[in-house]
Amino acid sequence: MTETPRDIEHLIDLMARLPGLGPRSARRAVLLLLKKRGSVMEPLARAMAQVAQSARECTICGNIGAGEICAICADPARETGEICVVEDVADLWAMERGGAFKGRYHVLGGTLSPLDAVGPDELRIPELLTRVQQEGQREVILALNATVDGQTTAHYIAEALEPSGVEVSSLARGVPVGGELDYLDDGTIGAALRARRKL
Amino acid sequence: MTETPRDIEHLIDLMARLPGLGPRSARRAVLLLLKKRGSVMEPLARAMAQVAQSARECTICGNIGAGEICAICADPARETGEICVVEDVADLWAMERGGAFKGRYHVLGGTLSPLDAVGPDELRIPELLTRVQQEGQREVILALNATVDGQTTAHYIAEALEPSGVEVSSLARGVPVGGELDYLDDGTIGAALRARRKL
Ligand SMILES: [Zn+2]
Ligand SMILES: [Zn+2]
Repeated sequence: MTETPRDIEHLIDLMARLPGLGPRSARRAVLLLLKKRGSVMEPLARAMAQVAQSARECTICGNIGAGEICAICADPARETGEICVVEDVADLWAMERGGAFKGRYHVLGGTLSPLDAVGPDELRIPELLTRVQQEGQREVILALNATVDGQTTAHYIAEALEPSGVEVSSLARGVPVGGELDYLDDGTIGAALRARRKL
Repeated sequence: MTETPRDIEHLIDLMARLPGLGPRSARRAVLLLLKKRGSVMEPLARAMAQVAQSARECTICGNIGAGEICAICADPARETGEICVVEDVADLWAMERGGAFKGRYHVLGGTLSPLDAVGPDELRIPELLTRVQQEGQREVILALNATVDGQTTAHYIAEALEPSGVEVSSLARGVPVGGELDYLDDGTIGAALRARRKL
């Protein structure tokens, strides 16, 4: 280990922090980068610096975009009166790949989790309530993972929205128990959306 | 997919070219980067640009280092009269982790492979012959993978070195058939080195 140049060791350590890469595969990844310096390593370093500099959280929905307001919130065609609530941006991307949902999103940034001291104020739940009130939405579709925390969060939000009179539904048929949206195929997500049930 | 910002898509595409990361895990990795922009993404982009700019192939042994000559070749304590021949830098790192070898290396950059039109001149075999002649080495240890191509290459090098009179040995006990050095534990590599046999 001692004879690996220090900056390469440092790069391996950082790569090993990515999901899916352990220390061994991080080393292999770095070796590939070293072999493909011009075609992969330099473009990757540039792309990463570029995204690190430009990516921002949409101030309306919490999606990741290139400006203050994301492309979905900026698109008037997506003003359908429906908001789809998701846990994180990965789930938003999964919904978009499905292509079945035409409205806008609200990214919570996680789920309620008393054990981890994550309450409504740690998520973007107050912002959701404000949005529904101010924007006059017709329906809120809860597209949360079918996990205990996801479902607890869904029930909490449904109750919190009750006074507003907005219709609240949730993805239903097609999401397997314990399943995570990001691992479902696109057709399943579309089916679950179409068969959503009122809460 | 359409609503993912284009520079993020581009970053995901580049990440997906790393070994161990498919398109799905590349997306998850990029999401983690976006969440840990200051603590992971920016340092990683910087480290990658830094290594892309500074890393060089050692002109003597083919190892990756920070200058013209790598730290091992520059270390007079490693002038032991022994050269260890490895296929690539991953194998050199694996040998170094084992810690049993005290001499210097020669990185071939692959194995002979007639089907892929890789002959001796595509590897650093001529450079190895010149080194042995000029540096007056006592022993060349072939630490090639126990694959068909690795063993073909070992036999080719042993024959090419015969006129020079240098002793040629190869890692023996402990390297399983079909096994690759980079996947062996450190102790196994040390044992195989100590039990090396003359060719
Ligand atoms: Zn938005
Ligand atoms: Zn060197």
